[in-house]
Amino acid sequence: MTAYAILGTGALGGLYGGLLARAGHEVHFLLRSDYDHVRQHGILVDTTLGDFHLDQPNIYRRACDMPKVDVAIVAWKTTQNDALATTLNCVCHSETVVLVLQNGLDVERPAAEVVGENQVLGGCCFLCCNKVGPGHIRHMDYGRITFGEAGREHAGRITNRMQAIVADFRTAGIDIQPAADFTAVRWRKLAWNIPFNGLSVVLDADTNQVMSDPAASQLAEDLMHEVQLSAAACGSMVEESEIRKLLEDTRKMVPYDSSMRLDYLARRPIEVESIFGNPLRAAIDAGYVPAKIEMLYHQLRFLDERNRGTESPNSI
Amino acid sequence: MTAYAILGTGALGGLYGGLLARAGHEVHFLLRSDYDHVRQHGILVDTTLGDFHLDQPNIYRRACDMPKVDVAIVAWKTTQNDALATTLNCVCHSETVVLVLQNGLDVERPAAEVVGENQVLGGCCFLCCNKVGPGHIRHMDYGRITFGEAGREHAGRITNRMQAIVADFRTAGIDIQPAADFTAVRWRKLAWNIPFNGLSVVLDADTNQVMSDPAASQLAEDLMHEVQLSAAACGSMVEESEIRKLLEDTRKMVPYDSSMRLDYLARRPIEVESIFGNPLRAAIDAGYVPAKIEMLYHQLRFLDERNRGTESPNSI
Repeated sequence: MTAYAILGTGALGGLYGGLLARAGHEVHFLLRSDYDHVRQHGILVDTTLGDFHLDQPNIYRRACDMPKVDVAIVAWKTTQNDALATTLNCVCHSETVVLVLQNGLDVERPAAEVVGENQVLGGCCFLCCNKVGPGHIRHMDYGRITFGEAGREHAGRITNRMQAIVADFRTAGIDIQPAADFTAVRWRKLAWNIPFNGLSVVLDADTNQVMSDPAASQLAEDLMHEVQLSAAACGSMVEESEIRKLLEDTRKMVPYDSSMRLDYLARRPIEVESIFGNPLRAAIDAGYVPAKIEMLYHQLRFLDERNRGTESPNSI
Repeated sequence: MTAYAILGTGALGGLYGGLLARAGHEVHFLLRSDYDHVRQHGILVDTTLGDFHLDQPNIYRRACDMPKVDVAIVAWKTTQNDALATTLNCVCHSETVVLVLQNGLDVERPAAEVVGENQVLGGCCFLCCNKVGPGHIRHMDYGRITFGEAGREHAGRITNRMQAIVADFRTAGIDIQPAADFTAVRWRKLAWNIPFNGLSVVLDADTNQVMSDPAASQLAEDLMHEVQLSAAACGSMVEESEIRKLLEDTRKMVPYDSSMRLDYLARRPIEVESIFGNPLRAAIDAGYVPAKIEMLYHQLRFLDERNRGTESPNSI
């Protein structure tokens, strides 16, 4: 049986790790601030897939107390990557696969530097899910994971180890999709994250406020097109029909506060480099300068830096 | 003797009109919210040029009660231009010259549509001055007016009527400079107003916060260069040395809240169209798209629109 480690038991790690554990898989959870609470009360997951409670999950406060696993899932935010190398060295053996479920571009690199790029997979999660209290996850909508190989050795292939992960996740009721060209999936997710995460912070606005204002929705669309041109410069395609659909879906969505805005308002660091800086630098290296993405990046760097002046402790 | 009308007795109108009146010129002030206070207490001006008080200035609540004048000075903000046509029709005879002392580009056009472009002059004021109470003006620093002819008939010339205005203003102690190529002066002022007024609102930051942050100061510089390229597309030159000097002066300036930020925080309308929309459209018409100015314009339109939801009454 495949053993899983969930590195960061927040909304995303709690949901997917919880579903795997409920289905009987071996799952080891790394926690920080919620450790004592979960030790006493377990993990509670409200989900459209059927609410459940894990009474005695395998939980750890320190990575070095965890066993070696077959699949290590990086589920914390990129802003919490400081502990990544130490943690992976604790939980990985030479065959361990690291699945990075973080937002942005090039987010597999830090894990690849520790375990080698051919042991790393990357995934994008399309889900509405929040941690509403210690050890308490609320999953509201969506939930698909699309993932693929990050290293050159396996590039463009759906490998056996991917198929094994798909099988485990599907027995747990998780919507998971393997992708041969995973980089295109990352760019497609960025086509939403860059305008709506970014503008939600700079304009202090939810999706509905942005989409119902002519100037702000025009800007969101301009930013999407810059993501499309950046992707094209880097060799990935984001279809125009995809952009139209993202805009239309967002227009119809219930007003949604991006997790980046929630982090910003709670004075937690925001993922400026992975979601904005990395795609910007990739585009510039490929010969295209996305001027509005660059401006958004500079605005967010300023706001994040000022916000950190009164930072509250991370909780993962 | 030349008769002057001051249309809008705020910081700028109160200062320059007050100085002219103190020097013995015939000055007629149009007021709205401060009328009753000024009728009782006069106008008080604290200025580096020597504090003074006008006991009984010629004041009017309604433009139609004012006499026809030789020079009508438009001293309110472009956001208060609704009353412009009515007001000019009241105070102008066929030879009246209208001097528009407003920020932005193409701000002479509304006056030109009323009195004809060849009767209009435009001016830029470089000054630190606030209205600190009803009929109470505080002038802190700078004060130069640079102005020129706005109409095609007199384009590129320093006309006799300009010389007459220069003479009157200088007897009143005002630093005034006639310019043959006045449009270049407007672009040079925009090279400061666009980055620092705009970012002060979007980032909720004073000049010092912008200049001391690497990302925000880079963005300010990028925006200045877009103003430079916009000016060039429209046939005006902003020298690179001018940009370096503006940045250096702003870095050394005491932390300064732009009047646009003060207006925004007080929930008054901000001058989005004259300072951002007009230069943007001029550049695009000339074949250059300043992407970051366009983005700032869309952000400010969104913020201004939302801010107007709880607008407080104008006071001019």
